[in-house]
Amino acid sequence: MGLKDVAAGIDIGGTNTVFGFVDRDGNILAEDRLKTTHYEEIEVFVAALYEKISVTAQKMGDGIEIKGYGIGAPMGNINKGTIEYAAGLPWKGIIPLAEIFHRHTSLPVIVTNDANAAAVGEMIYGGAKGMKNFVVITLGTGLGSGFVIDGKLVYGHDGFAGEIGHTAIRPGPSNRDCGCGRKGCLETYVSATGLKRSLLKIMADSIQPSELRKYSFEELDAEMIHEAAKRGDYLAKRAFQHTGRMLGFKLADVVAHTNPEAIFLFGGLALAKDLIFEPAKEYMEENLLSIYKGKVKLLASELSTQNAAVLGASSLIWSNLEAQSKT
Amino acid sequence: MGLKDVAAGIDIGGTNTVFGFVDRDGNILAEDRLKTTHYEEIEVFVAALYEKISVTAQKMGDGIEIKGYGIGAPMGNINKGTIEYAAGLPWKGIIPLAEIFHRHTSLPVIVTNDANAAAVGEMIYGGAKGMKNFVVITLGTGLGSGFVIDGKLVYGHDGFAGEIGHTAIRPGPSNRDCGCGRKGCLETYVSATGLKRSLLKIMADSIQPSELRKYSFEELDAEMIHEAAKRGDYLAKRAFQHTGRMLGFKLADVVAHTNPEAIFLFGGLALAKDLIFEPAKEYMEENLLSIYKGKVKLLASELSTQNAAVLGASSLIWSNLEAQSKT
Repeated sequence: MGLKDVAAGIDIGGTNTVFGFVDRDGNILAEDRLKTTHYEEIEVFVAALYEKISVTAQKMGDGIEIKGYGIGAPMGNINKGTIEYAAGLPWKGIIPLAEIFHRHTSLPVIVTNDANAAAVGEMIYGGAKGMKNFVVITLGTGLGSGFVIDGKLVYGHDGFAGEIGHTAIRPGPSNRDCGCGRKGCLETYVSATGLKRSLLKIMADSIQPSELRKYSFEELDAEMIHEAAKRGDYLAKRAFQHTGRMLGFKLADVVAHTNPEAIFLFGGLALAKDLIFEPAKEYMEENLLSIYKGKVKLLASELSTQNAAVLGASSLIWSNLEAQSKT
Repeated sequence: MGLKDVAAGIDIGGTNTVFGFVDRDGNILAEDRLKTTHYEEIEVFVAALYEKISVTAQKMGDGIEIKGYGIGAPMGNINKGTIEYAAGLPWKGIIPLAEIFHRHTSLPVIVTNDANAAAVGEMIYGGAKGMKNFVVITLGTGLGSGFVIDGKLVYGHDGFAGEIGHTAIRPGPSNRDCGCGRKGCLETYVSATGLKRSLLKIMADSIQPSELRKYSFEELDAEMIHEAAKRGDYLAKRAFQHTGRMLGFKLADVVAHTNPEAIFLFGGLALAKDLIFEPAKEYMEENLLSIYKGKVKLLASELSTQNAAVLGASSLIWSNLEAQSKT
C-alpha cells in the first residue's frame, strides 16, 4: 500500500494549539494538541509542536506522507508568514513563524489568520458550502473573524482583513482594557475571557446568589459558566445574555459592511447555543437597517470546535500545491 | 460624422440629482441637474428627469446616441433595480426605479447604490486606478460607502453591501434621530446634515460668538460652515473637528473589516480638506490596531464632487453592453 498524502493543519489558539493530519477529502486521520500557554518562547513552542507532530506521524506507522504545514493563528499574515502583535498569545511583536518553522522542515509552511482558516474550513467542508458571501466569527479565548466575499477569502491589502475583535464597542478611557493595548474592544466582551469578565462585573453589581461565587477568576472558564446557566444560575444566564447582546450589536455593523448571506459562530461560546444565539440574534435584528432585517442567517458552525481551523489551515496546503503544479 | 455613443450617468442625491452624458473614455460631454427635493412623487421625478435628459440631448444636436441609463442612488439595489427605504430621499418604502424609468425608454436602466457608483468611478477614472482594495465614503446630505475588494465592487448577498452610514456610532435612546428610524447612526454625525446638527449643538453649549449664530438651521449649509471655518470662526472649526473625529473613529472599524489600501472621501464635506481630513486621520490612527497603524491612506477623491458617481453610474452601462455582446 502506498503512502497517503496528508496536510498538517494547525490551529494556534490563545489556550490550546490543535493539529491534525488531513487528507484531500477533509478526513482528519489523527489529531492531537498542546498547551500554547506553556511556551514563553516561540522557538521552544515551534520545536515542541514540530516534535509532537512528528511523534504523532510515527505512531501512525508508514501510512502517511506530510505534504506541508498549514497554520491558522490570531493575527497570522499570509503574505509574510508572520504573527503580528497577537494580543492573546504569549509571544509579543512580530513573530516570523514560517521562518522559524522552516528550521525544522523544507516543506511548504503557510500561515494565516485562525478565523480565516476557519472560514475556509466552513466553506469547503461545513455549513457554508455553496455560499458566496458569509462571515465566520470564532469565539475562543479571543474573537476572530473571517470574511468570504464572492466566494473568496478577504485578505485585504496588507493581509490583515477581518479583525473585528479589535473594533471598539464601547470606546472611552473608563472601559475594559484589551490585550492589544486599547480600551473597550469587542473581544473584551465577546469571547470566553469576555464572558468571565462580564460574569465578575455582574457578580459585583448584584446581590443574587450564584453557584459560581465560590470560584476565582482564574478557576472559572466558559464551560463552567455554560453549565451553571443550563442549571438555571441567574448570574451565569445574565453573563451570557450580556455577551450575546454585545455580539449582536456588532453583527449589525458587520452586515452593513458586506451584507453577507450568513454569519457563522464557531468555537467554545457557540456551543452554548440559545444562551448566546438568542440575545445575539435579537440585538442584531434590532440594530439592522430595515433593508437587512430578517435576511441574514445567524448559524452555528457545522464543524466541531476543533476542526474548522485545522481543516481550513490544511486546505491552504492543497491549494498551494495545486497552484505550484499549474506553474 | 457618425453619432457618438454615450451612457447617461445619473447621481440621485438627497438634495440634487446630477446627470451627464459620458463617452466610453470617461469624458462628460454634457451635464445638468435638478432638485431632488422638489419632487414628492417618484413618477413625477422620473418624468421630469427623463424630460430634462432628453432636452439636454436635443440641445447637443445630432451628436450623441444614448446607449443606456446608469443610476446611482442611496439604497439603490443592482439586483432588483430598486431604491429601498432610503432615509434621505423624498420617496418612502421600496421604489421600483428601473421599472418606472422603463415607462419612458426601452434602453438598459441599471440602478446601484450611489456610493458604489462613486467607487467604480474612482477605480476607473480616479485616484483608485490600479488599486485592488479600497473604500469610498461619500459625504453629501447623507453618508454612503462603497467597498472594492480584490478589484471588484462588493454587492453582498442581497445587493446592499456598504451602508456604514447606518451603523450606530453612539447607540442609545438619548441619541440623534436618524431618517432611517433609528438612533445615533454615523450619518447623523458625518454628513452635511450631521455637520449642521453638530454646529447647532456646539452653539447651544458654548457662549462663544460666531458669525453663524444669525442663520437658522434651514438657512445653514455645509459650505457656509466651511467658509466660516476658513475665516477662523471658532464654532465652525469645532463643528468640523467633531465631524472629523466621528468619521475617523468609524474608519478604524472599516479598516478592521476589510484592511483596504486606501479610503477615499468624496463629496461636499471632503472639499473642506484639512478641516475634515486632519481630525479624521488622527482619530482613525488612534483607534487602529497596531498592525494597521500608518498603513491605510486617507485620500480625497480625485474626481470632482459631481463627477465620480455620474462616471461610475455610466460605466455600468458599458460593462452591461460588454457582457451582452459576449453572450
